[in-house]
Amino acid sequence: MTPDSQSTAPDHRSTAPDPHDPEGAIAAAAGAYSNWGRWGDEDVLGTVNFIGAAERARAAGLVRRGASFSLAMRFQNDGPQKGWRRRVNPVHTMTDTGAEAALGVQGFPHGFGGADDVIFMPLQCATQWDGLGHIFDHGRAWNGRDAAQVVTSEGDRVTGIEHLAAPVTGRGVLLDVGRVAGEDGELPDGFAVTEEHLRAAMDAHGVEVRRGDIVLVRTGQLARVRRSVERGDGWGDYAGGPAPGLSFTTAGWLHRTEIAAIATDTWGFEVRPNEFEHAFQPLHQVVIPHLGLLIGEMWDLDGLAADCAADGVHEFLLTAAPLPVTGAVGAPVNPIALK
Amino acid sequence: MTPDSQSTAPDHRSTAPDPHDPEGAIAAAAGAYSNWGRWGDEDVLGTVNFIGAAERARAAGLVRRGASFSLAMRFQNDGPQKGWRRRVNPVHTMTDTGAEAALGVQGFPHGFGGADDVIFMPLQCATQWDGLGHIFDHGRAWNGRDAAQVVTSEGDRVTGIEHLAAPVTGRGVLLDVGRVAGEDGELPDGFAVTEEHLRAAMDAHGVEVRRGDIVLVRTGQLARVRRSVERGDGWGDYAGGPAPGLSFTTAGWLHRTEIAAIATDTWGFEVRPNEFEHAFQPLHQVVIPHLGLLIGEMWDLDGLAADCAADGVHEFLLTAAPLPVTGAVGAPVNPIALK
Amino acid sequence: MTPDSQSTAPDHRSTAPDPHDPEGAIAAAAGAYSNWGRWGDEDVLGTVNFIGAAERARAAGLVRRGASFSLAMRFQNDGPQKGWRRRVNPVHTMTDTGAEAALGVQGFPHGFGGADDVIFMPLQCATQWDGLGHIFDHGRAWNGRDAAQVVTSEGDRVTGIEHLAAPVTGRGVLLDVGRVAGEDGELPDGFAVTEEHLRAAMDAHGVEVRRGDIVLVRTGQLARVRRSVERGDGWGDYAGGPAPGLSFTTAGWLHRTEIAAIATDTWGFEVRPNEFEHAFQPLHQVVIPHLGLLIGEMWDLDGLAADCAADGVHEFLLTAAPLPVTGAVGAPVNPIALK
Amino acid sequence: MTPDSQSTAPDHRSTAPDPHDPEGAIAAAAGAYSNWGRWGDEDVLGTVNFIGAAERARAAGLVRRGASFSLAMRFQNDGPQKGWRRRVNPVHTMTDTGAEAALGVQGFPHGFGGADDVIFMPLQCATQWDGLGHIFDHGRAWNGRDAAQVVTSEGDRVTGIEHLAAPVTGRGVLLDVGRVAGEDGELPDGFAVTEEHLRAAMDAHGVEVRRGDIVLVRTGQLARVRRSVERGDGWGDYAGGPAPGLSFTTAGWLHRTEIAAIATDTWGFEVRPNEFEHAFQPLHQVVIPHLGLLIGEMWDLDGLAADCAADGVHEFLLTAAPLPVTGAVGAPVNPIALK
Repeated sequence: MTPDSQSTAPDHRSTAPDPHDPEGAIAAAAGAYSNWGRWGDEDVLGTVNFIGAAERARAAGLVRRGASFSLAMRFQNDGPQKGWRRRVNPVHTMTDTGAEAALGVQGFPHGFGGADDVIFMPLQCATQWDGLGHIFDHGRAWNGRDAAQVVTSEGDRVTGIEHLAAPVTGRGVLLDVGRVAGEDGELPDGFAVTEEHLRAAMDAHGVEVRRGDIVLVRTGQLARVRRSVERGDGWGDYAGGPAPGLSFTTAGWLHRTEIAAIATDTWGFEVRPNEFEHAFQPLHQVVIPHLGLLIGEMWDLDGLAADCAADGVHEFLLTAAPLPVTGAVGAPVNPIALK
Repeated sequence: MTPDSQSTAPDHRSTAPDPHDPEGAIAAAAGAYSNWGRWGDEDVLGTVNFIGAAERARAAGLVRRGASFSLAMRFQNDGPQKGWRRRVNPVHTMTDTGAEAALGVQGFPHGFGGADDVIFMPLQCATQWDGLGHIFDHGRAWNGRDAAQVVTSEGDRVTGIEHLAAPVTGRGVLLDVGRVAGEDGELPDGFAVTEEHLRAAMDAHGVEVRRGDIVLVRTGQLARVRRSVERGDGWGDYAGGPAPGLSFTTAGWLHRTEIAAIATDTWGFEVRPNEFEHAFQPLHQVVIPHLGLLIGEMWDLDGLAADCAADGVHEFLLTAAPLPVTGAVGAPVNPIALK
Repeated sequence: MTPDSQSTAPDHRSTAPDPHDPEGAIAAAAGAYSNWGRWGDEDVLGTVNFIGAAERARAAGLVRRGASFSLAMRFQNDGPQKGWRRRVNPVHTMTDTGAEAALGVQGFPHGFGGADDVIFMPLQCATQWDGLGHIFDHGRAWNGRDAAQVVTSEGDRVTGIEHLAAPVTGRGVLLDVGRVAGEDGELPDGFAVTEEHLRAAMDAHGVEVRRGDIVLVRTGQLARVRRSVERGDGWGDYAGGPAPGLSFTTAGWLHRTEIAAIATDTWGFEVRPNEFEHAFQPLHQVVIPHLGLLIGEMWDLDGLAADCAADGVHEFLLTAAPLPVTGAVGAPVNPIALK
Repeated sequence: MTPDSQSTAPDHRSTAPDPHDPEGAIAAAAGAYSNWGRWGDEDVLGTVNFIGAAERARAAGLVRRGASFSLAMRFQNDGPQKGWRRRVNPVHTMTDTGAEAALGVQGFPHGFGGADDVIFMPLQCATQWDGLGHIFDHGRAWNGRDAAQVVTSEGDRVTGIEHLAAPVTGRGVLLDVGRVAGEDGELPDGFAVTEEHLRAAMDAHGVEVRRGDIVLVRTGQLARVRRSVERGDGWGDYAGGPAPGLSFTTAGWLHRTEIAAIATDTWGFEVRPNEFEHAFQPLHQVVIPHLGLLIGEMWDLDGLAADCAADGVHEFLLTAAPLPVTGAVGAPVNPIALK
């Protein structure tokens, strides 16, 4: 991102593509915004390369009050998943509890008692990063690799999430599009967030997105769904149903700004229904394999957003280190914003 | 921790207790160092209460270069667990791979392909925090609660790890006892790290432990075991066998310094074999239920330690946010040290 | 069961109990029909004791054609579970597939390739037996034992399903109440199957239930739900919603007939909604802890029932050996009826 | 199998192949013993086709005493697996126990209490059938299919174990080679069971193997390992180490006899170390993809074998219905022999 590129009008590519031709639109965007080869043939980091030590050091300098915000949903059985493609909610079970400790059946000496637990979960069941091996375009993975060679039953043998264990720490910027462009702080389902909306949020917040940033886009959908859950009406179609989200037309902005990552408070990052007929997550198909962009989903931005609205500061140090499961194509994360 | 308490000589309690009477020694230490009620009857944070916003803001100020270190082991099948108490290594499996994407059998339109994955793992299989509900003393959990009421098959209903989602960010201090007191940077198995060793490390590093710190004690055992793994000789008894670690006699220091948390590069934090006959993790039995101390285990400190040895700076911003599994008594974590 | 007891009219206890007082009705039935102590203090088999070698040998003599029927639903992600009490559908994943074999990345010599798989599932997610440790009455398990001592986090330490690995083979009798008392072969949801309906089915089929039998009661609900699934409308509330099933008033019949086990094609064996206000599975609360009765649920009886309707023979050899998971309180089973 | 083929001497193919050329030997055996196309292009049953209703009816006629034997090991954490290719032992955990029932925290009315459980396990962790999609030869699955198309991350889309839910019931024949050819009833590790040994066992037992039989070959290894487990010395290398087992040279016998299935009391069915240099399970590579033979492993034959030795009867009704996990390439089974 150069100052120029940002001060000029949105380029022509952000105009809406032909809704009848997702494949053509994807191909065009992929051609225009590819980062293949940008960091060499062996690259496993994608746009996370944009975060350097200098960016991190500057981000640490943003911390004023020492207020810490967890942007993670809870990992629990009562979650949004409904079994689609075997994505169930986490099943957390105990192998020992206080009851056995009290009964004295654990076999430990001197009054020692313990509790222990296990979990079964899809790696993308709640707050998570999509790894670079998560999405392919016509059999091609990030950097042009053959998907079938990269992600096998062993996992992602090249771009596994473990490579991102350390570097995903830097400047976070919250764009609260829900508050800026929505009603009562929320965008309706199906609302496509365009470059114009992102720019309006930056203007409203007095913050500029810069190279290497981790951009958090709040739509307000999670707040709406949470009210439903709290009413006892459940998660509804949060996991995969209609949702506000990024427009396909933002692909250029996502490329041009040279951000390191982007995350939303929705299941799927991009607007749903998608902006094409008979389509499935076309923006993913561009930005993961072609840009190498790190995408976060199901982030809980509400507490942080309330704080940002209160103090007017929308930038912070963000530490969002994925759980380093070797070969994973996605990973749970407990992102911490420090202001 | 008051300046006084730290400048005086170690108190008498740090002398070695009677090895024939773990139960008595535990009772004595529990009586001397209890934090029950210190933060009210409803407390769910324990010593993490020592980290305030001011501590966090100061810790952010320690960041100079922007160098980021992940202190997590990899979560993978090839890990140290051997099935003790059903603790197996993580089993990570794919629900979709590049092969299906290439075959075109995934049912997606316009050349979209995806990979997805699930995991089964004990929550304490690799780098982790012990939650406050992990260990009990004679049926009592943290703050004096009835263990049987606190941790049921539903999980920890009171002090679940989710309460620690946000606050575990602050000043980290590395005490590289392996380098200071060991040979070739490593302490032998069975080496009991005492208050004197900790103090020697502080002196050698020119760093002082302060209230609210997250203290990382490197023994070097993981480095030794890793060489075995790399040679093809496996993890041996890393998970539960002999190991260097904290002496039971450090209970007073752990209490007096008012640290928020402590973590080691070993399976079990305290020295093994334990310093009593017929004992099992007696220091845990004091510090978790009575001090409310957050303990981290199986942290990979080697990269950070090498950097600290090189630049002589042993303090840093540490973000160590556990994966917030509701009701968990322990949680995987990818701690990030930022220097 | 004596010939007498069966030829007389149903006893008074089968009259409907007070719907306002489930606890009283359960206590009365528990008192009247208890088998505690019947097979000694150490018993772990309950009514399966009624199946002796002689019963098995006679049952084998029922086989005429050699037709084999599996009475198991498929264990798969697309199943009836909705997450209630952490009961998800099975998640079956591959650790190796044909793709890796074809790619040659498995590391095997001479063209050898393999596929392998793992499963995560609740033990009662599909066709299953309830173990004797599955249900308690006021903290009492089968044979009067203390539930808290019997079933801990280790599992059922006394009456685990592994004890039933061998004996659950004997004479099966199908009572197709759906065909006999329903419309188009199906009972509506909420239909309470009483002793009279069971007797009517026996009369219609020309079969008598005898001591040691494994009785299969077909309501037709699964057939109805399967049509919904096949239409693409899903499982609805099959797992826990309204259903036909055994009336609470059948407790006496279940006791008096000295059957070894009973299974239905429904989620919960007994009629739902239950016949009391504010109740949950009251018949379970009587027959599992007090009778020691083995209960099967979610059995797929439709193929067998069609065959029985066609040839008029409703008795057969039934082999219904649970998967012997040590300490399990329920177990998946693939029951085989041989005619 | 024709009477002729069985009365003649073993054919030349059963002579030992060149130990330096497993690939050649496999190709020769595959060519000589292929059943591809034998049951049509759509076949999903392989040699289970040899079991017809008549065979089953005759097998039921073998039942005399009504004695029932479970041939399954226990599915439990304390099992033989060591993590090879992510094969861990089963992890069985409780979601509710008697403790919660006693505490009254389950939320049920009228004194109702319950226990519930879940399991995570590799499908081939204990007593199991290998499905037809388990092993490939140079990328070819049973009946000549393309392995990459048959077994994907969805599972076995063609020959999943669910197709075997009903038919695997028939005549079982125990060949106790351990007792006939071993010392103290056990063959040493590395002992290759040849056609001659099988024949000697048949002669000693006075039983003849016939078309459609399920043949159980007892080596005695499990008895030996079980003593080690009971001594506290663990399972050793039962899962994959040296073991007695079928010689590669039995491929012809396995084909010629037209048996439906074969099972052993060992981890891997065939002798280990394999009879070739640098080989891995070469007999599997012939009999699964080329013969379509159903192979059972880790069957506990000791109780049945003792009974057969005592009464001299080595044939019985065998019901060995796999757990019908949709798309599985292997399945746990609790086989029941009824004599």
